[in-house]
Amino acid sequence: MDYNATALELHEKYKGKITTALRDQGELTKDRLSAYYTPGVAAVSRAIADNPALLPKYTWTNNLVAVISDGSAVLGLGNIGPRGSMPVMEGKALLFKHFAGIDSVPITLDVHSTEDIIATIKAIAPSFGAINLEDIAAPQCFEIEERLKSELDIPVFHDDQHGTAVVTLAGLINATKVTGKTLSDCKIVVVGAGAAGTAIVKLLHRYAHPQIVAVDSKGIISARRSDLNSQKQALLPYLDGSKDGSLDDAISDADIFIGVSQPGLLAPAHIAKMAKKPIVFALANPTPEIMPDVAKTAGVAVLATGRSDFPNQVNNATAFPGIFRGALDNGVKKITDDHKIAAAEVIASLVESPTAESIIPSVFDERLVPAIAATIS
Amino acid sequence: MDYNATALELHEKYKGKITTALRDQGELTKDRLSAYYTPGVAAVSRAIADNPALLPKYTWTNNLVAVISDGSAVLGLGNIGPRGSMPVMEGKALLFKHFAGIDSVPITLDVHSTEDIIATIKAIAPSFGAINLEDIAAPQCFEIEERLKSELDIPVFHDDQHGTAVVTLAGLINATKVTGKTLSDCKIVVVGAGAAGTAIVKLLHRYAHPQIVAVDSKGIISARRSDLNSQKQALLPYLDGSKDGSLDDAISDADIFIGVSQPGLLAPAHIAKMAKKPIVFALANPTPEIMPDVAKTAGVAVLATGRSDFPNQVNNATAFPGIFRGALDNGVKKITDDHKIAAAEVIASLVESPTAESIIPSVFDERLVPAIAATIS
Repeated sequence: MDYNATALELHEKYKGKITTALRDQGELTKDRLSAYYTPGVAAVSRAIADNPALLPKYTWTNNLVAVISDGSAVLGLGNIGPRGSMPVMEGKALLFKHFAGIDSVPITLDVHSTEDIIATIKAIAPSFGAINLEDIAAPQCFEIEERLKSELDIPVFHDDQHGTAVVTLAGLINATKVTGKTLSDCKIVVVGAGAAGTAIVKLLHRYAHPQIVAVDSKGIISARRSDLNSQKQALLPYLDGSKDGSLDDAISDADIFIGVSQPGLLAPAHIAKMAKKPIVFALANPTPEIMPDVAKTAGVAVLATGRSDFPNQVNNATAFPGIFRGALDNGVKKITDDHKIAAAEVIASLVESPTAESIIPSVFDERLVPAIAATIS
Repeated sequence: MDYNATALELHEKYKGKITTALRDQGELTKDRLSAYYTPGVAAVSRAIADNPALLPKYTWTNNLVAVISDGSAVLGLGNIGPRGSMPVMEGKALLFKHFAGIDSVPITLDVHSTEDIIATIKAIAPSFGAINLEDIAAPQCFEIEERLKSELDIPVFHDDQHGTAVVTLAGLINATKVTGKTLSDCKIVVVGAGAAGTAIVKLLHRYAHPQIVAVDSKGIISARRSDLNSQKQALLPYLDGSKDGSLDDAISDADIFIGVSQPGLLAPAHIAKMAKKPIVFALANPTPEIMPDVAKTAGVAVLATGRSDFPNQVNNATAFPGIFRGALDNGVKKITDDHKIAAAEVIASLVESPTAESIIPSVFDERLVPAIAATIS
């Protein structure tokens, strides 16, 4: 199927993907209008002005997520700006609605400095029940999320970081089951130290304290490097600090390879150096770090990719709809590491009998959203 | 009917007034998802990144208006802040959808300085096809609108100003017909020099150059006053500068009184001093400057108010749905005075045989939106 042609055709035909509708499907009589707008609405406004905690009781914010991006790191397209990123953010809004029934508004920003992005999001925050940050480039994304989490009283969740980390952890829980490994005893190599890689390292550390070596485009991240930005320096406490060098050096005896990096980065020669029953999460998209047929021939025990046309897709849509559903329904103000771990565990648990070809539930599994939502409380 | 109780009940029952929905009502298969999100959506994003003019072709922005307020001048409630104002802005979104099929997102701002409001709106502007400013206090609202109009390439329309002015002009066109007056020969008194009063003065001047005296809380606005802010100084060229004093002084021989001020401001004694067949637009809401029964007894020939329970309601919803419908459909980037005048004329024309009790079409008149939209091109 030619997804590009179909995508252009469908987007033009329907003039986008989302629309608004009225909650009350009854006839909008003069009396109804007088209750929904002036003069009646004044009573609702006054009630909220007196007690802002009533906002979700009386307005659509109770079910509303802003999907916000500055378009600086969109899919594999890089910095394509606010207008170029709109179809992706509107697509995310479509996923929110389809999978979790959540109203969602794509907001694409024409500002790009950390401070301007933070100021803009804080300025519009009263309009929403939660904020999904999307496709904002590292390392800016880290400070933006941290600051917004501490300065706003609604959930703020950078899905490129945490959605990926949650589904990766879920997959690893089952991949280690399949291979008879214990995650806390595993040696793990994470290649790519952007938004996803950083969040994966932190969540794995928090969950099981495994031995983790992180590799970026310059090589193994260690305290002996002089070129680390503050965000990578902040990653050091989570890492095995004993090694230096390249992926070649990192990969020896590794039980698990997690790539959020570049197509074709992982060669059969790397697999050969890994521990027995190697687990490979080759998440570069659309072209993974190693293709499934090559990985299989090279002896990989469990392979996951970011693609829906191979088994074991690591897809954020497995996690974020349920996480936001739970946060909104349960009045959760901060999505914590404990929430993410609980979400990963429940995702993993939905695969009753994990096998090498089945470690992650399908995004279409209808048990996902309610099961995850129940853990976010 | 107790609108307050009904309003609280309906808002709680439906958890707000608007929701999102998917444009494509077909089954969202794996293939469809791959066209609406990754990998297919990348082609759409690339196309827009290469040519930003394609944004409305492929995204919901073609039918999307942001209703933006900082909550500083909401209905008669004053400065109730971003959360308190949300029900009103969501109500406006409901009106947009109901009357014109326009998707609309309420955005309530947690910033209040002129520069912060402008910066925030500019930052989020790529997300929308047009901007409706709402309930932002004067005189800030004037600079905010002017700056955004000049700095953004989508329509920006402060409805409290121009929506009111358009419907007022439409009403006056028919009220002068009913009374046999000629608008350009009329002496007009406008009381209230906030958002609506200022826009009414300017639009009437542009349309017919009548003799206009404006009155604010300190009296007649003239060049001899030393307390005028820059916005009121800018109003002087549109005004009859010969008079000083109070409403009592202004009202002598006036053909038309337009109040956007305070309840009960206009007394029978004022009416008695007006020219023959006086026209009174008493638009203070919910309590007008003079009640209809009092006005009738005092000899008013044509009375309009802001209320739906009296004849001749001046209601912005008569104008703004059609104005935005036209701007979006016709690719209009700036809504000009000529557009506003054309809209007023077409609104007036929809009342085939104006009478004292019927100078403005009902907001439920289904001819309104298409007729107005056709003039915004």
